[in-house]
Amino acid sequence: MTLRIALDAMGGERGPEEMVAGAIQAVDESDLDVALIGDENILNGILHKYPQAFSRLNIVHASQTVSMDESPFEAIRKKKDSSISKAFDQIKNGAADAVVSAGNSGATMASAIKYLGRLENILRPGIASIFPTLKKPLVMLDVGANVDCRPQHLFQFGVMGAAFSNNLFNIQKPSIGLLSIGEEGGKGNVLVKSAHELFRKSSLNFIGNVEGRDIFQGDVDVIVCDGFVGNVCLKVSEGLAEAIISMLRTEMSKSLMAKTGYLLAKQAFANFGKRVDYAEYGGAPLLGVNGTGIICHGRSNAKAIKNAIRVAAEMIRSGVNSHIMQLLSDSGLVDGKEANNGSDADKKTGEAE
Amino acid sequence: MTLRIALDAMGGERGPEEMVAGAIQAVDESDLDVALIGDENILNGILHKYPQAFSRLNIVHASQTVSMDESPFEAIRKKKDSSISKAFDQIKNGAADAVVSAGNSGATMASAIKYLGRLENILRPGIASIFPTLKKPLVMLDVGANVDCRPQHLFQFGVMGAAFSNNLFNIQKPSIGLLSIGEEGGKGNVLVKSAHELFRKSSLNFIGNVEGRDIFQGDVDVIVCDGFVGNVCLKVSEGLAEAIISMLRTEMSKSLMAKTGYLLAKQAFANFGKRVDYAEYGGAPLLGVNGTGIICHGRSNAKAIKNAIRVAAEMIRSGVNSHIMQLLSDSGLVDGKEANNGSDADKKTGEAE
Repeated sequence: MTLRIALDAMGGERGPEEMVAGAIQAVDESDLDVALIGDENILNGILHKYPQAFSRLNIVHASQTVSMDESPFEAIRKKKDSSISKAFDQIKNGAADAVVSAGNSGATMASAIKYLGRLENILRPGIASIFPTLKKPLVMLDVGANVDCRPQHLFQFGVMGAAFSNNLFNIQKPSIGLLSIGEEGGKGNVLVKSAHELFRKSSLNFIGNVEGRDIFQGDVDVIVCDGFVGNVCLKVSEGLAEAIISMLRTEMSKSLMAKTGYLLAKQAFANFGKRVDYAEYGGAPLLGVNGTGIICHGRSNAKAIKNAIRVAAEMIRSGVNSHIMQLLSDSGLVDGKEANNGSDADKKTGEAE
Repeated sequence: MTLRIALDAMGGERGPEEMVAGAIQAVDESDLDVALIGDENILNGILHKYPQAFSRLNIVHASQTVSMDESPFEAIRKKKDSSISKAFDQIKNGAADAVVSAGNSGATMASAIKYLGRLENILRPGIASIFPTLKKPLVMLDVGANVDCRPQHLFQFGVMGAAFSNNLFNIQKPSIGLLSIGEEGGKGNVLVKSAHELFRKSSLNFIGNVEGRDIFQGDVDVIVCDGFVGNVCLKVSEGLAEAIISMLRTEMSKSLMAKTGYLLAKQAFANFGKRVDYAEYGGAPLLGVNGTGIICHGRSNAKAIKNAIRVAAEMIRSGVNSHIMQLLSDSGLVDGKEANNGSDADKKTGEAE
């Protein structure tokens, strides 16, 4: 069966040209179809330059777009014909199998929940990020969907991350670490200490707390945290990587010798760039929704979009969602009922739902 | 008046030799005296190699040491004669003016509060970290003392950070940013949203929310966050910086050309290293305690210890503590009474004290 991916062609900071270029790369390199969702005049204008791609790309008109800084909930409520809403609607009415968007990530998340709903027994869908490390890719979640969490949510993030890591990277029983500020179980804030107990009692391959420095070592497959901490980590990492490269470049332009050194080592810098390229996996998969969606970085280039489309297809073909449900029911700890009633550990954070 | 700094000579992963070497550098390069707190047999053995330093270094015997992974509260309760406790006791009995320790940071923080107490109206002392950035040093707090915070605590971290930034880096009306996951005031978790309101109503130079990527740009003087998030940021930054350098080195050793490039650019790498050297400021000042203390990294070398001793003296001479109290009372928002009763914003997090 040919899978069809709905691409929010109006999303992202680089504009529809870049989105279309990504879609064309995707259909060129795979057996997938892509539906371009957005303003048909604009998209037709771009697409006419690529006659060879016509048969496997179709345009679905959406009269509205959501800007990057718009309130997600306002956007969803008021813009029923936005490219994001329309893309998820494509899944709902059976015309597409997954959504890829580099647009407003809050609106993408909210639309996913609105149009697809949650997987059975999943309390809160999360956004996973794939970090490059010294060894193998790491799945970290939540990186922004849920800023105030209960222990049960963190536990389910672990389940979802493990299913994803297993299906996409072929890792058997992925190891799960809980992000904290000390390795011992007693270290951390109230939320993390309670979540630690849930993981410890489960049948998951829980290796205990991990620290910020462990993220890039590549010794753990899945790292769990709340969406506030995860989003901060993601942005600190982006900002620091850019600052380090910028400082090194400055230092290397200060003397002729250093400049020559830089020129000779340029390929090494390029190889390094490839190792840490966010575009390699295209974007951040939404886990826990009853369907498939990938949120791409606002600055995504065509390559990132192509890879996100590929990853979306892999998620569907490998059956991530049924694996999440299976793993949750096998975890020996959490069925939906227990989760919805709230466990003792849940109550400790004192957070109102 | 000659200031005397009490150095926990048994702290740190490199052992007493390194601590003593730092103390000797400090007295050589300044007019300060240093008291070495620790096992007198060990310290006398080391000190005999440096006869010229004898007059401005004295040893204060402490029969116990606290290990790096010991529970801080157990350590404080059971080891009354540890080098950490004894160091703070030196301040209490008037024999020293500040403490520097590279030992167990939890125990150092707890001892500071036990022996020195808090500054008037300060609810929770915090640990500040000084981050290198593309422009100027940034003060970030809390980086680990308080993992579960109320909005009022974050507000006071802002006051303390601003006083420190003003006194140590000579910045007039330091700008304060609140670490969140979006720039608009409405973005963030419950804690951050409430703290945002407190800052907004105050007379501090509050510039609004900042994101993880802003840390290294150097456009803000003080960044405020809870101790869990701050500690994660600190460790993510350390881990990522090491991973990037390690990946670059690997890439640069792969071909003769890249190797040659690395050799030519070696000085640039060294200059870069200096720019991001944690040892430049020696350690993380404790702010909000009624006295002066600096927590150094466990891996501190002699240079870091020397600089921490220098910064401790600068904190005393510039009157950071009285500036904190002045700024708090001037902030137009928080006097101790109001703070202790808990404001409306406080209650929103629902966290029990």
